[in-house]
Amino acid sequence: MKGSPPVLGSAPTTEGTADGVFKEVMGAGGGEMAMGRAADREQRQFPGTAFDEEKILNLVSLEKDVDGFHPINMGNLSMRGREPLFVPCTPKGCLELLLRSGVEIVGKKAVVIGRSNIVGLPIALLLQRHHATVTIVHACTKNPERITCEADIVVTAAGVPSLIRSSWLKPGAVVIDVGTCPVEDPSAEYGYRLVGDVCYEEPLSIASAVTPVPGGVGPMTIAMLLCNTLDSAKRLYGFT
Amino acid sequence: MKGSPPVLGSAPTTEGTADGVFKEVMGAGGGEMAMGRAADREQRQFPGTAFDEEKILNLVSLEKDVDGFHPINMGNLSMRGREPLFVPCTPKGCLELLLRSGVEIVGKKAVVIGRSNIVGLPIALLLQRHHATVTIVHACTKNPERITCEADIVVTAAGVPSLIRSSWLKPGAVVIDVGTCPVEDPSAEYGYRLVGDVCYEEPLSIASAVTPVPGGVGPMTIAMLLCNTLDSAKRLYGFT
Repeated sequence: MKGSPPVLGSAPTTEGTADGVFKEVMGAGGGEMAMGRAADREQRQFPGTAFDEEKILNLVSLEKDVDGFHPINMGNLSMRGREPLFVPCTPKGCLELLLRSGVEIVGKKAVVIGRSNIVGLPIALLLQRHHATVTIVHACTKNPERITCEADIVVTAAGVPSLIRSSWLKPGAVVIDVGTCPVEDPSAEYGYRLVGDVCYEEPLSIASAVTPVPGGVGPMTIAMLLCNTLDSAKRLYGFT
Repeated sequence: MKGSPPVLGSAPTTEGTADGVFKEVMGAGGGEMAMGRAADREQRQFPGTAFDEEKILNLVSLEKDVDGFHPINMGNLSMRGREPLFVPCTPKGCLELLLRSGVEIVGKKAVVIGRSNIVGLPIALLLQRHHATVTIVHACTKNPERITCEADIVVTAAGVPSLIRSSWLKPGAVVIDVGTCPVEDPSAEYGYRLVGDVCYEEPLSIASAVTPVPGGVGPMTIAMLLCNTLDSAKRLYGFT
């Protein structure tokens, strides 16, 4: 990377308001962050509903949308024959886990639990790009366990502790657990511990692989964010 | 509508080349069609692979993308909490058929056969928006009939005549047939007739409703194109 350009990090804006975010994203020079080379990546964590997520995302430069949440990136991810500039980090991490573990995806039945813009939808689109037959299960789905128990690959992002038990799974299924929920645990250092959607010990006896929480998808998300940031910088500085 | 603005129709460009299309879309004034009020809608039929579909679609003004194929419209269709300016016409027509026929969608199992950008993908996204549990079946799916026979709603856009038989369907299923294939028929006026994916007579005994081909989805597509064009003009002239 040439020089040492500043990176617009993900720390909450000092003003803590939507206007503050607009101001910071647009920069003093009027859109400098969005248009110029002042940063390699732009990433905003949305702390609450007080923020107009759509308005903020639309301000993010497509070339620096390392989270991959810009509607053009999502559109290009969903459309066949197109390539998004960035794939959202957590879904990309899930796919990387499957690919690097040698899990066959083509022609396999995959079920994604949850249909959020940041996990459920993009992981479903990614699995479909890899020619899986994908079903998205959500809050309105009746008897979801009857659908998951036929899947070769289950990606769960429900945020419901211990939702997935052995009875939900087909023998040999591969389970990617994206759920992360804090549950009280007086014996833990901070009085709580993080658990996933999978009742971890139980499905281990039936699934061929299950990712742990913490330590499974989480580190992959961070790795993919770094990967997207590097890609962004390489494109920006002509190192592609 | 104020005045009588010209409509950029869907007839193939006179030059018949990608460059010709760019020229026509961009206009003599450099992007006039894309940026100005010279047309209420912009629609391009893509006659073959000689055209760079992505390049042409990216030139179409988002506000006049009555086909709904612009990646921003597709991105906004796929993302929860967002609304595309236009929904692609055929999928919109399929949904309209279901809604106007009083078919319950929320919580129902829907299977979409085919994953094209213009039908399969957007109809799956639309059904999911209406809270169905959606599975997309495609060329890599093994034993697709085992998936379709559990569906309450089947939308088929495979383009394979007589693919869907009774054994593929659950009793009472609703079937939307988007397939259109010309098959030889010496008794027909032009020596061929159009057939859908559904072996029409057979599933009639098991399904609760099946759309005919021709005369089912086709006219709905045209109606929805007019509907999108009207919406476009109303927005353009401030009649919303």
